Amino acid sequence: MKQWEQYFRKVVPYVPGEQPNKPGMIKLNTNENPYPPSPEVKKAMEEFKMDQLRLYPDPSSTVLTEALGEVYGLKNEQIFVGVGSDDVLATAFLTFFNSTEPILFPDITYSFYEVWAALYNIPFETIPLNEDFTIRKEDYYRKNGGIVIANPNAPTSLNLGLDAVRDILEHNRESVVIVDEAYVEFGGETALPLLKEFENLLIVQTFSKAYSMAGIRIGYAFGAPSLIKALNDVKYSYNSYTMNQPSLCYGAEAVRDQKYHKEILDRIMKTRTWAAESLRGLGFTILDSKTNFFFASHREVPAEVIFNELRKKDIYVRYFKKPGIDNFLRITIGTDEEMKAFIDAVSDIIKEQKAF
Amino acid sequence: MKQWEQYFRKVVPYVPGEQPNKPGMIKLNTNENPYPPSPEVKKAMEEFKMDQLRLYPDPSSTVLTEALGEVYGLKNEQIFVGVGSDDVLATAFLTFFNSTEPILFPDITYSFYEVWAALYNIPFETIPLNEDFTIRKEDYYRKNGGIVIANPNAPTSLNLGLDAVRDILEHNRESVVIVDEAYVEFGGETALPLLKEFENLLIVQTFSKAYSMAGIRIGYAFGAPSLIKALNDVKYSYNSYTMNQPSLCYGAEAVRDQKYHKEILDRIMKTRTWAAESLRGLGFTILDSKTNFFFASHREVPAEVIFNELRKKDIYVRYFKKPGIDNFLRITIGTDEEMKAFIDAVSDIIKEQKAF
Repeated sequence: MKQWEQYFRKVVPYVPGEQPNKPGMIKLNTNENPYPPSPEVKKAMEEFKMDQLRLYPDPSSTVLTEALGEVYGLKNEQIFVGVGSDDVLATAFLTFFNSTEPILFPDITYSFYEVWAALYNIPFETIPLNEDFTIRKEDYYRKNGGIVIANPNAPTSLNLGLDAVRDILEHNRESVVIVDEAYVEFGGETALPLLKEFENLLIVQTFSKAYSMAGIRIGYAFGAPSLIKALNDVKYSYNSYTMNQPSLCYGAEAVRDQKYHKEILDRIMKTRTWAAESLRGLGFTILDSKTNFFFASHREVPAEVIFNELRKKDIYVRYFKKPGIDNFLRITIGTDEEMKAFIDAVSDIIKEQKAF
Repeated sequence: MKQWEQYFRKVVPYVPGEQPNKPGMIKLNTNENPYPPSPEVKKAMEEFKMDQLRLYPDPSSTVLTEALGEVYGLKNEQIFVGVGSDDVLATAFLTFFNSTEPILFPDITYSFYEVWAALYNIPFETIPLNEDFTIRKEDYYRKNGGIVIANPNAPTSLNLGLDAVRDILEHNRESVVIVDEAYVEFGGETALPLLKEFENLLIVQTFSKAYSMAGIRIGYAFGAPSLIKALNDVKYSYNSYTMNQPSLCYGAEAVRDQKYHKEILDRIMKTRTWAAESLRGLGFTILDSKTNFFFASHREVPAEVIFNELRKKDIYVRYFKKPGIDNFLRITIGTDEEMKAFIDAVSDIIKEQKAF
């Protein structure tokens, strides 16, 4: 080891979800939207003036926050944007969680919460889910340095009712409560109506799923002006220009086209209904998804076996080799055609495996 | 103050450089390139397939690192990319500077070094420049947790010779040395030839200045594969997808068009030569700029006065109200037309001020 290498930051080298690129593959592993972004984005791309690239972007991202504000009925000073919801959430951790009390989040949830807490030296405690993977709201009625709830939760796909979210907020008037709504548009209940009542509520959403723009890297947060100002102060203090011109411009057009947005959400939810039915018919337990993915376990064939067999057929789903969920698959909801092909393949695999 | 606000991170709210947008204004305040990006970028924009936006970007940014590798004669594993050089530098601080010894950098240099050190709890010591704003290499021959040199330095615009950079590296075989070359293409000397000799050297460059793409947010680093791997490990561990699809794609085309790149660099350097001459004729002291800006002080009229008077005429330059440099202006080199208009305006201001 070289002298200087002893001072390298020690991290668990995370391997990002595969981004295979094979002709004819079926990619149901990273919860991308199977439909293209709004045609308005195409138009924005054609009208984009290249000379804009020469200049630094507007650090306050006004073009984008204004579009979000119009659509969600909020003011600019209630909206923060970042490079994907990962950036927004990490900035929120850094900004809000500086108490010595531990922050709380479920033990089965988005895996980056733990990573950011460790990165910024934030004490944290994970709270076990119920056996059926639901969140028990009462577990969050205790002293803490902050709370983070993914709703719907990932990878479980389950929604926590708005009343329960309100109860958690009512029992936590002393710390910031983050509700991570990356998947909320697929049938979950947004905490947006609670913003008026709770100045310590931060809601985080993303363009990556419902808006079909994982490739543009935009996440955003809604909250009281005091929270948003704190986020911006922290962000400006160490990196003022993170959102590039194309993302600001294309993002604003995508969010304004709510008609298209709702259309593709409807299509995905329809696919979800029949696909869940079919999978249950094949012996799968499927949790009640309010997201664009299934969290599914087969009664007889182990998840890891199905995962590997699917891979051989160039069908990609996600498998987490973690205690408590290691017999589950996370399966993104694709187009009707993709789901048919997936179900046919999975049906063959189950038959083969049971024949052994 | 609300309960939770006591745990907000305390920061000095940084005010990003103005991004005024007035018709007819002359903007010489943020070191942007006055010429548009390569026409190849326009072509890439036209050929961009919108459906790509649906998918997460390639986390290893191969399209872009390959283009950089071709042009700079390096392998993929020697190249790291990030959201502007601010992101690259901040990640490098986080990755490499975990010793208990202080890192060293000049007292007058890029203001974010201090910010990132504070953000990541890195002890640091700033080393005074010589009276003539040059760096004294011997000051860096001592125990440290890392070294950061901007070369050319900002806002001084001065180049440190390659021999001096080599000497600093030779006296620092135990820590990582970062050379921040944001402006190097405008006549500075790059440390690239030293990469073969020094495995602890990290060179950081950007698309924001010489490539005319401040709006796309791309920075990059060159270094030994062991350094680049460490950077990627840290990056993947907390945010895997930071570079959006347009930046990867447009960036790759921009860097491949070296002919255009060199053409606009030449134009800017020619403008620099005559503009420096003219300004000296008006009574300015101009440091020997190897960048796309001047660091200039007038013998009779205070910098702050000139700054404010220029603003009234919608001409924007940068003024730092900091000890040691508070009688200097940082003036970006624009087109010939912009510099003529600027010099005319400044000449009028000086006449008026001297008449008082």
